[in-house]
Amino acid sequence: MLDASEVAQHSTKRSCWVIISNHVYDLTDFLENHPGGPNVILRYAGKDATNEYEPVHPAGTLQRHLPANKHLGPVDQSTLTRVDDTPPTLGKSESSIVPHILVCQSLDDIESAARQKLSRKAWVYYDSAADGLHSFRTNRLDWAKISFRPRVLRNVARVNMQRRILGHVANLPFFIAPAAMAKLGHQDGELCLAKGAAEKNIVYCSSTYSSISHEELAPCFDRQEGRGALSFQLYVPKNKGDSRALIERAKALGCKSLVITVDTPVVGKREEDDRYKAELEIEEGREVPRTTSAANNEEAPILRGYHSSTVDWDDILWMRNAWGSNQGPVVLKGIQTAEDAYLASLTGVDGIYLSNHGGRQLDFAPSAIRTLLEIHKFYPQVLDDVEVYLDGGVRRGSDIVKALCLGARGVGLGRPFLYGLSAYGTEGVVKAIEILSDEIETAMRLLGVTNLDQLNPHYVNCSLLAKELPENVTPTNPMRQHKL
Amino acid sequence: MLDASEVAQHSTKRSCWVIISNHVYDLTDFLENHPGGPNVILRYAGKDATNEYEPVHPAGTLQRHLPANKHLGPVDQSTLTRVDDTPPTLGKSESSIVPHILVCQSLDDIESAARQKLSRKAWVYYDSAADGLHSFRTNRLDWAKISFRPRVLRNVARVNMQRRILGHVANLPFFIAPAAMAKLGHQDGELCLAKGAAEKNIVYCSSTYSSISHEELAPCFDRQEGRGALSFQLYVPKNKGDSRALIERAKALGCKSLVITVDTPVVGKREEDDRYKAELEIEEGREVPRTTSAANNEEAPILRGYHSSTVDWDDILWMRNAWGSNQGPVVLKGIQTAEDAYLASLTGVDGIYLSNHGGRQLDFAPSAIRTLLEIHKFYPQVLDDVEVYLDGGVRRGSDIVKALCLGARGVGLGRPFLYGLSAYGTEGVVKAIEILSDEIETAMRLLGVTNLDQLNPHYVNCSLLAKELPENVTPTNPMRQHKL
Amino acid sequence: MLDASEVAQHSTKRSCWVIISNHVYDLTDFLENHPGGPNVILRYAGKDATNEYEPVHPAGTLQRHLPANKHLGPVDQSTLTRVDDTPPTLGKSESSIVPHILVCQSLDDIESAARQKLSRKAWVYYDSAADGLHSFRTNRLDWAKISFRPRVLRNVARVNMQRRILGHVANLPFFIAPAAMAKLGHQDGELCLAKGAAEKNIVYCSSTYSSISHEELAPCFDRQEGRGALSFQLYVPKNKGDSRALIERAKALGCKSLVITVDTPVVGKREEDDRYKAELEIEEGREVPRTTSAANNEEAPILRGYHSSTVDWDDILWMRNAWGSNQGPVVLKGIQTAEDAYLASLTGVDGIYLSNHGGRQLDFAPSAIRTLLEIHKFYPQVLDDVEVYLDGGVRRGSDIVKALCLGARGVGLGRPFLYGLSAYGTEGVVKAIEILSDEIETAMRLLGVTNLDQLNPHYVNCSLLAKELPENVTPTNPMRQHKL
Amino acid sequence: MLDASEVAQHSTKRSCWVIISNHVYDLTDFLENHPGGPNVILRYAGKDATNEYEPVHPAGTLQRHLPANKHLGPVDQSTLTRVDDTPPTLGKSESSIVPHILVCQSLDDIESAARQKLSRKAWVYYDSAADGLHSFRTNRLDWAKISFRPRVLRNVARVNMQRRILGHVANLPFFIAPAAMAKLGHQDGELCLAKGAAEKNIVYCSSTYSSISHEELAPCFDRQEGRGALSFQLYVPKNKGDSRALIERAKALGCKSLVITVDTPVVGKREEDDRYKAELEIEEGREVPRTTSAANNEEAPILRGYHSSTVDWDDILWMRNAWGSNQGPVVLKGIQTAEDAYLASLTGVDGIYLSNHGGRQLDFAPSAIRTLLEIHKFYPQVLDDVEVYLDGGVRRGSDIVKALCLGARGVGLGRPFLYGLSAYGTEGVVKAIEILSDEIETAMRLLGVTNLDQLNPHYVNCSLLAKELPENVTPTNPMRQHKL
Repeated sequence: MLDASEVAQHSTKRSCWVIISNHVYDLTDFLENHPGGPNVILRYAGKDATNEYEPVHPAGTLQRHLPANKHLGPVDQSTLTRVDDTPPTLGKSESSIVPHILVCQSLDDIESAARQKLSRKAWVYYDSAADGLHSFRTNRLDWAKISFRPRVLRNVARVNMQRRILGHVANLPFFIAPAAMAKLGHQDGELCLAKGAAEKNIVYCSSTYSSISHEELAPCFDRQEGRGALSFQLYVPKNKGDSRALIERAKALGCKSLVITVDTPVVGKREEDDRYKAELEIEEGREVPRTTSAANNEEAPILRGYHSSTVDWDDILWMRNAWGSNQGPVVLKGIQTAEDAYLASLTGVDGIYLSNHGGRQLDFAPSAIRTLLEIHKFYPQVLDDVEVYLDGGVRRGSDIVKALCLGARGVGLGRPFLYGLSAYGTEGVVKAIEILSDEIETAMRLLGVTNLDQLNPHYVNCSLLAKELPENVTPTNPMRQHKL
Repeated sequence: MLDASEVAQHSTKRSCWVIISNHVYDLTDFLENHPGGPNVILRYAGKDATNEYEPVHPAGTLQRHLPANKHLGPVDQSTLTRVDDTPPTLGKSESSIVPHILVCQSLDDIESAARQKLSRKAWVYYDSAADGLHSFRTNRLDWAKISFRPRVLRNVARVNMQRRILGHVANLPFFIAPAAMAKLGHQDGELCLAKGAAEKNIVYCSSTYSSISHEELAPCFDRQEGRGALSFQLYVPKNKGDSRALIERAKALGCKSLVITVDTPVVGKREEDDRYKAELEIEEGREVPRTTSAANNEEAPILRGYHSSTVDWDDILWMRNAWGSNQGPVVLKGIQTAEDAYLASLTGVDGIYLSNHGGRQLDFAPSAIRTLLEIHKFYPQVLDDVEVYLDGGVRRGSDIVKALCLGARGVGLGRPFLYGLSAYGTEGVVKAIEILSDEIETAMRLLGVTNLDQLNPHYVNCSLLAKELPENVTPTNPMRQHKL
Repeated sequence: MLDASEVAQHSTKRSCWVIISNHVYDLTDFLENHPGGPNVILRYAGKDATNEYEPVHPAGTLQRHLPANKHLGPVDQSTLTRVDDTPPTLGKSESSIVPHILVCQSLDDIESAARQKLSRKAWVYYDSAADGLHSFRTNRLDWAKISFRPRVLRNVARVNMQRRILGHVANLPFFIAPAAMAKLGHQDGELCLAKGAAEKNIVYCSSTYSSISHEELAPCFDRQEGRGALSFQLYVPKNKGDSRALIERAKALGCKSLVITVDTPVVGKREEDDRYKAELEIEEGREVPRTTSAANNEEAPILRGYHSSTVDWDDILWMRNAWGSNQGPVVLKGIQTAEDAYLASLTGVDGIYLSNHGGRQLDFAPSAIRTLLEIHKFYPQVLDDVEVYLDGGVRRGSDIVKALCLGARGVGLGRPFLYGLSAYGTEGVVKAIEILSDEIETAMRLLGVTNLDQLNPHYVNCSLLAKELPENVTPTNPMRQHKL
Repeated sequence: MLDASEVAQHSTKRSCWVIISNHVYDLTDFLENHPGGPNVILRYAGKDATNEYEPVHPAGTLQRHLPANKHLGPVDQSTLTRVDDTPPTLGKSESSIVPHILVCQSLDDIESAARQKLSRKAWVYYDSAADGLHSFRTNRLDWAKISFRPRVLRNVARVNMQRRILGHVANLPFFIAPAAMAKLGHQDGELCLAKGAAEKNIVYCSSTYSSISHEELAPCFDRQEGRGALSFQLYVPKNKGDSRALIERAKALGCKSLVITVDTPVVGKREEDDRYKAELEIEEGREVPRTTSAANNEEAPILRGYHSSTVDWDDILWMRNAWGSNQGPVVLKGIQTAEDAYLASLTGVDGIYLSNHGGRQLDFAPSAIRTLLEIHKFYPQVLDDVEVYLDGGVRRGSDIVKALCLGARGVGLGRPFLYGLSAYGTEGVVKAIEILSDEIETAMRLLGVTNLDQLNPHYVNCSLLAKELPENVTPTNPMRQHKL
């Protein structure tokens, strides 16, 4: 039984103890491995971090990542002076009103509702994007640059929206895209996403950083037909063994596909996030080390580097093999150019997932729909060779139909479902799915189609976006750029 | 004589009685056939629905649609407790001021005036459009992308604006487009439109869902030359016999043309409408069944499906024949692509009517003027083969002149006339016609033309819009897409 | 000596007497000939119109236009009850503050100052434009679509801005464009324009409807070199004899050029103007006759028709001859297409003046700079054959330099000088000229040129505007369109 | 010892004495040579100008520019009545709050902070730009028209941002662009820039008009490797001898490059600046001479002319020689067209510096990035022949990376560093450098590159900007335009 005052003496980089749920842990050696960076831990060095830790980590995280000898034992609770660590001015507004769920007619309505309810911390984490938010905004605006070409006088009484998505025959051609930290928005966290997906029979692709453990999520999908499916998104860790372990874990849980994120060698510069953290630190009067660029010191840790920054095309080959060939598709998430789409199609993966990470990585990266048009222009064969998924700025069933017209197999949405669960829990997730379903069905009938396979590029007019495509792409043989 | 308390016991889907104008009706079997959907009836199950019913149904509707045995007889009025069913917060503002009609210089001025006067219910119905209102807004913006090329030094003392429109030689090249529910805006409802059209000798194309019966409207046009004309718009009912009956009725009334709407296999998602209804239901504390997509249940009624969702090109043939060849033109309303314009020109109809339904059906459908340019680009022969009408976002005489330069025979306007009657009754309809007449006449003189037939594409510069057209259209033989 | 009560009995269309400066006039027969339309006179039928009449008519107008027998003699002033006829709510705000002239750094600053000072009546007249103001706004925006291509490392110590403009060697390449009713803005009216032009040695092209008589303006230009010059703008009257008289008058006054306006067969629909008049009429409780379109009644006067609506290319020939060949250039104002520019170049006139009348005639007419680019594209030879002037939306010296790069000989500005005199009298006119002079001189040096003749299209980048030009122009032989 | 009352009698153009730091100077003959124009001196004629003079002149300025006999000796301080000459309404707001430096996440945040702190005088000087601010705004907007094409699955663990910039191997590919008057923002003035540049090992290109003498700045760079470097920006004076002296001075101080500004034969029209001065003069009740254009008077001084307006390509040759061939590069700053870029490449200079002077010279001049694309299109060989630098509207590391992709060697930023020092002194300059460094490093990794030399045009999509380039450039042999 440790005394809180003793813990308080280990409050620096050199010796960093932290209390979580009445137990004391020595995190000194772990600091540099923390996916969220060391600073967020150091804020609680020598203190009780339960309130901060709990909403963003699945059960079992400490056990999984920390050697047993770093578990120092329980704290004497009588010595604890627990305080609310959220400065009052940064907390959520208590007086705001969340509208009745029935009033929500669109995903934007759900987002507005969530904005009323979320704490600033959660809102900032969900809503923030890179630099000046250009890609974040373009993601939405680009959809509006595509118009429809509706055909009339066709029998559209019966409409079928089923499609095989990420290895599962889903009722609808969209899926819940990987998005972490759902417990920031609702105490049930990712469970809401899993339950919603199961109820409406769509795929939920859960993040490596799910704040509910995958072991808790998997049972929501009871493996009957028509009850949804789990897909596993992989942030490639720095350590190859860790990657292998995560892949094995996903297989053990029966995940129907493996989605490897390839656009995150470093994390993007999300200023609202950084500003929020800086404000907290200033309020607390903590001394913050000056940012130092790696340029001056090759031994310094990579700025914004939480994942592997060395993963390359060769790594895809062994990860593909580790997953195995009869486990369902392997998909590369974060493809942003026609060249890389083509390269991916040569590696033997089953699918590519066009995405600029919701505008959270490189600002001024193209929207996924723009990359899809780029593939049409320069490497159209890719559309025959691999399954194409995409996400980014999708807020309407009509967005999804547009993507499908252009050859996408399925479309992911992330933030809207986080907003759904934040405002209304599982019911909000279901509501979001139903709104999209209604919109897709209505759009199909009004376009004159009754089956997703009937959709083709002649149902859309993309001339506005086509004018903004690059005039040419990297001319050298793309094969020479990797070692296949 | 029935007692209100007895009626109150029939308040569910299984037994639904409703009081209208002191008579009781059993609407149980009718629920699914109601063009506005069953929910709007169920709100009044067991209650007095007179206030809700009266403004949106022509006289005789119940008689026409309900078997005699469903008329259960008069209610004992002493047992009624009539209440205003419009929640006060949703009603119109009494303090708003409608400006003097003389101040109105443009259709926008008239719309502003109507906005002051209309109840929220009426405003929402008239103003709402599909999804995110993109097509609704584009309809107006596209007109502004066309500029004029005025010619000078021509004798323009005498100007003639006459043209044969929808089978009638009208004084002006525009007509009142079908728009339902005029009694929401003014107690005289569609009579204002008929009287205004007759006074200024233009065509009024009345909606299937006119809230004044066509039998009351027809006498406004006394069949002298120069007193306007009635055209009949047909929403194709689910039942073929109903279609035939409506066509016969139109013929009997002397309608000069038949306008068949082809863009409404389901009704578009009009969120303001749906939100208004949801708010009413929440205020009333009624339980609302969860929306269920048809995708899961093939036997479920089609979501948003009030009309026939099976009507196809073959149906046009028999309807054309049912109308007859010496009754005036048959026109297909809702054509939105060059391909369908071409297909229509092969079916033997006399005209096509380019429209995206005021942006109320498929959001991101092209504006009619854009479709007209598309026809110019890909199937210019259509302009020789059939009469071309269009509507959507027209608010200026100059918009009309632009359409005529590009080959349209006539142009329809819907909402502006509803706003005119809402603000000022028949006088407002006449005012709107006069404003447009003045604008057309002035524009013609300033363009250097004196007769509508002189207008041609060289009087307009469409280069901005031309850049936004699709690069190509469906390449397969369009004949293979239907059974002609 | 007439009694006011007797005058009051002649207050209708059938007998319309009006008191002006204590004299009574019978305007019954003149009503239809009034360039401002009959209604504005009828408002004062039977009353004292001095306050309304005086600011907008030059001295001698009544004498010139009214037969002697319509002058009924003086009114007995003791019987007059003079009232201020401007309703107080429509007058100018007394509390507004006009900034010191030295604070004005740009023409926009001067406009802001004038807006503080002008009565609503004057502001509405000066600022109003046709319909929805599209051309009015485009006039300004189009200048901003042209960028410069500045050249460096050239000796630019000495800069010369002289150029022959409208028959006069002016110090600066711009002139005061015709704009009427200057007395609405300042009691000295057009005298301020004449004095300013003389002081800075530029050309003043005065309007047919100058509120100061041309006889008073001409002496401001003392015919020494370098003291400016007067040019005469002609609105062609309905009566050929009146045209001839005006031309003779201009010659007698020594005007150096004749600018014939060809874009005004009818006056444009200026809604702010009309709305202002309607509000006055409503406040006064006068009955206003319903607007009636000429379409129904061929004998009715032409709506908005104050000038000749029959003038054509043939009329230009006799007017050219009436002016004579040694009087300085004849220029056609209001050319708006490349075709008409070419036609004009065939008629023997010396110049063309591209203009959409400040956006006051046909809304959606192209800006003059756009027409100039159209001429470059389709009839470049016109630029060699005639002098090209233009106006519309010019607010910067850089706008003028852009026009000159593209081949314009000179550029007119109207409203900015009206705003200058309204805010500061003659000093404001001079200030506006100096601001433009400074801007032109600075722009020339920074472009690397020292003489206006060095300017050419390579100093500007017009690619944005070029994309908006029509793809082709009227293909038939333009000669066949007139009788030359 | 002079008496203040005696000084007060020399308050005109004809005899102009001024007190500075308790000494009296006769500035009568110097008036016309003052780079800021005579008016700013005349405001203090006969008075104490210390408060105005001190923040904008380096120590030793009077000694360097004024003959000894114009130094009239000390003033009797007891006779002085020093007053604050800044009118209170124009001074800075004392109540504004500058946020903690840690909250600043972007250069825009730093600018906002500076805006809180700066006096209106300083803000106006730093922020103002020419005419209507079109180029000023376009400079920023054009960067946003370029998007990235990020490549994935590359090892990006080690990133190197070093590059030789303006003759110095810098740690980062950007430099501090010449910007004068830093003492307006902070008492240490340009010393903050020098210290920041030295600390982060980047180049500081100091302005001719540095408010700290170059002799004080040079020692900040201790000539060890990796401690930054000083570059010398030259405004060519009217007198050739002065130019030569400045060049010798720069050599003596060890400046590593000479940047000759070629876009300033006159100073641009910066209206906020002029308005501020006019307001001061009006508040003080001083009489201001009417602006007179040189057009009327060839002997008058050139309006807005502080530097040589005769410098041409030949002058570049002797300045190049005066600098010598082993002193580091000579760079021409202010190139704005492909033609001049090509001409410059023929003159033997080492580099060109594309710039429109922060939008402060000719409004509607193209942004530098647009000129760079123009060079790509018309004279791509220039990119091989000379080093290309640019500035204008750069606010993000991503802007810098875009420029480097398109062939720029390095990128300058001016205002952001002035804002940094204004808000936070040297620490603010360092912070701005660190933010950019972080952004560049992150962008490189997310693009898939580890070395600046890997950047090439395929990493960017410039199709939006490419559409706005001129269609052609001056076709005549560019050699004929100068005497080489």
